[in-house]
Formats: sequence, C-alpha cells, structure tokens
Amino acid sequence: MPVTTTRRAIVRVVTGAEPARTPDDLAVESPLVLGLAGEAIATLMRTPGHDLELTAGWLVVESGVRRADDVVQLRQCREDDTDRVHITLAAGVREPRPRAFVTSAACGVCSADVLDLSLLADGPPHTPGFTVPRDVLAGLPDVMRLQQKAFDRTGAVHAAVLAGADGTLGPVREDVGRHNAVDKVVGHALLAGALPATDRLLVVSGRVSFEIVQKAVAAGVAGIVAVSAPSSLAVDLAREHGLLLAGMVRRGRMNVYAGEDLLAS
Amino acid sequence: MPVTTTRRAIVRVVTGAEPARTPDDLAVESPLVLGLAGEAIATLMRTPGHDLELTAGWLVVESGVRRADDVVQLRQCREDDTDRVHITLAAGVREPRPRAFVTSAACGVCSADVLDLSLLADGPPHTPGFTVPRDVLAGLPDVMRLQQKAFDRTGAVHAAVLAGADGTLGPVREDVGRHNAVDKVVGHALLAGALPATDRLLVVSGRVSFEIVQKAVAAGVAGIVAVSAPSSLAVDLAREHGLLLAGMVRRGRMNVYAGEDLLAS
Repeated sequence: MPVTTTRRAIVRVVTGAEPARTPDDLAVESPLVLGLAGEAIATLMRTPGHDLELTAGWLVVESGVRRADDVVQLRQCREDDTDRVHITLAAGVREPRPRAFVTSAACGVCSADVLDLSLLADGPPHTPGFTVPRDVLAGLPDVMRLQQKAFDRTGAVHAAVLAGADGTLGPVREDVGRHNAVDKVVGHALLAGALPATDRLLVVSGRVSFEIVQKAVAAGVAGIVAVSAPSSLAVDLAREHGLLLAGMVRRGRMNVYAGEDLLAS
Repeated sequence: MPVTTTRRAIVRVVTGAEPARTPDDLAVESPLVLGLAGEAIATLMRTPGHDLELTAGWLVVESGVRRADDVVQLRQCREDDTDRVHITLAAGVREPRPRAFVTSAACGVCSADVLDLSLLADGPPHTPGFTVPRDVLAGLPDVMRLQQKAFDRTGAVHAAVLAGADGTLGPVREDVGRHNAVDKVVGHALLAGALPATDRLLVVSGRVSFEIVQKAVAAGVAGIVAVSAPSSLAVDLAREHGLLLAGMVRRGRMNVYAGEDLLAS
C-alpha cells in the first residue's frame, strides 16, 4: 500500500497555554518521475497512490490520449530511490512536450499562443439531453467529503471525483496537488474505457483554474462542480466548450458560472 | 492599472428560492510569457499586476538570481495580444531551464535527482539571534487578511507577504496561483535589495508544498507562516534548512512543524 500520510513530531501552540510536543499527520508529497523512451520527461510532485491513473490522466491533456488503447504500457518501478512510471504510447499518439515550450496553437479564449488547445476539440460537450437536478448538484461536495480519508487525517489534501446526474460517485482520489487529484480521476476513467465522460460531472474540492477546465474538456465531462470559485479564464473556457460550471457550492448555495441550461429543478 | 478582478453575469442558486441572474466578481487569470534571448521560456498563468516582480521572483528559484544586479533588464510589453516580459540576465547568471528536465543535482530530502537544490545553498538560515514572539506570529495571517483586496471581491485568490518579527508587513501580493503570490513578494524584495531576507517571515494564505519552501529558502527568509498545513516534504526541507515553519495558524492556535527554537514567548 502506498503511504499517503505520515507522522511527524510537532509543537502545538494554543494562546494562553504552554506549547506542547505532539505527533501530527501530514500529507505525503514526493516526486514521481515520468519516463518515455528512456528519458525523464516530467516530474510530478504528488501524494503516492494510484500513480498509473495519475500518469494516464496526465497524458489525456499532455498527449491527447483518449482511449486506453492509446497507451501501450505504463510500468511502475523504483529506481535510484525514486518512484518512476515508464510510458509506452501507441503509434501515432503525440508525445508530451514541456508546457513552457508549447507555442504551436492559439488559444481562442485568451488569444495567447501559449496553450495548445488543439488536443481538446472533439465530440459534443455532453450526452444529448443531459441535465442534473439542482439539489443533487448542491449535495455533491458533501457526498465527496465523506470519502476524503486523507483530508480527515491531515486537513490539507485536495480531492476529485466523477459523479452521475443521480448523485452516484465513482472512486474519490486525493492528492496534495489539485491537478493531480483530477488527473487520477480522469486516468481511472480512461483506463476503465469510460472517456469521454459526457454524462459525468467532475467534482473538485478547491478552486477552478484554466488548467482544471482544460483537463475537464479533454476528459469530455459535462461539467465541473467546485467548492471554491473559478478564475475568469476558467469561466470563459467552460462557456466556450459548453460545460456546466458551478462554484462556491456550499451549504445549499451555489454560483453557476456557465451551462446553466444543464440544471434541472 | 492592471485588471485583477473582472465581472461576469452568473446564476445564483439558493435552496428553496428561484435561481437569479446576478453580476459576480472573478479573479482574472491570464498568461504571462517570459522571454529570454528572443525565445519564450515559460508561461505563467497569473493574475495581472506586479508582473516584473513576479518575473524577478520566479528567477530567484529558476535561475539562482540573488541580487537585483543579477538581472540587467526586465522589459514588459504586449505583443500578439499577450503580456510578455523580456528578461536580460547579467553575465554568469545561469539561464532558467524547464523544471521537467532538471536532473543535474540530487535532492537531499527526497533522494530524487529531479529537483535542483544547488541554487538554494548559501548563507545562514536567519539573522543571528532572530526570534519571533508567539502572539505576533499567531496574528500575522489576520493582519495580512486585512489587505487582501482581491480576495474581498472574489473569495478566490491567494496572498503572500514578508513580515518582520515585530509584526510589520511589507506589501501584500495576491494571485490566483499560490506560487505566483510568493514570487511577487520575493521579487519585490529582490528588486528592493532586500534579499536574503534573513530577518523576515514569509506569510502565505494557503498550504505549504515543497515548492513554497524551495522559494523561501532561495529568498533566505527565516521562516514560513501559513494558514493551512504543509506537506511531508515541505516539513523535511524546512528542517534541513533551519527554517521556522508554522501552519494551521488560525484563531489563536498553530502547529509549529520546524524551527520552534525561533519562537519567543
């Protein structure tokens, strides 16, 4: 079993009392090196566990992978005291490129030449006729919260999950990184043959940045449900791609930033 | 003036009431392309404003920049509808390299060959004799909170600031990205000739990952004060470099994960 939390001796300070030494649970963060054709191509600082799903999900955006068949093999090992996943892609699948150097395509939303969205454009934004009842949507973060085991121990890990319009959840994934939690969930769906997930909502515990919407679009989900708020660019990208985007979903309230036509009463 | 928040029409949903269309303020996220010798070397998804400080702070970790003189020029412009900063480094300063390919040095904490810490190792961890009273430290996030203007409007931006042991704050910086907020603060100090900041604490609004500690070590601060919790690797790196690391600093309570000898009663 991968170690997702670990214990350290810390000093707890409470106003008016003497500082006290006590054990505390921390979320584990450690590097996972992704290799392709014998070269290290990326290092993800992640919480160990579900590393193959993490890698598969990362490839969905970075390499345009859409079906499990696009990936011939993901082989995990530990070399030089470091966790590694060696990737073998199917013929014809584009190799991941470092994001900093991606300058080939224009981004319709931000007019920048820096974000390659060519990998995103395929298929309908959601299953025809897909809608989600408002009260189901409003309850999704709380239902996910019940399964955030690492958060219970540490108070400091993000979570993500795919949910159906009836409120049923797939497996919840947790990670110190917001993006990693989403990649693990998307990777699980990819490996299960469940992409594009056009009748699923991506539920996330944190904020929604451009990159989170990018991952959601690549995975083909119908929408995003977040506990916190989106950025301007996240809203614009969700609108451009026809996604439902609900944020600040807390205590029976929510803001719907995009795709409100997918809400049912 | 750079635009840090923007307004969109959204739908607000409250249980038991009809959904209502209303304007809502969002944090702006847009790309900043960093260029060196005519080549785009990185794209930062950031909240506009203090872009030169952001670039300078980014260079502190990515390029080992330690003094304002290490940077000959930072020139900001808008080309092809995209914000850009062109960097000219002084002779002898190492050029930034994409992080994914950094494989030259071993990380003492995580035993990985993926994180180049060679740029971090110089100078004492703090000004000799530096201590901070517990009650001053406990109040720092609340004092910073009073200046989080963009957070007031959007509820979704991170903040960072450098603070003295007497509780005085430097300029607070906000950004959709946790790392960017820290880079802006560190860059401000660099350009003001105030690095290494060995008698300052870096206060951050969010969680503390390995990368945040890496930035703090590079900036030479005495410690880190965070509203949320650190990861395991963040704690280990702080201990290795002799930094004070306090987290979960809320409502008169805090956890001290490293450097408790710097606390005064």
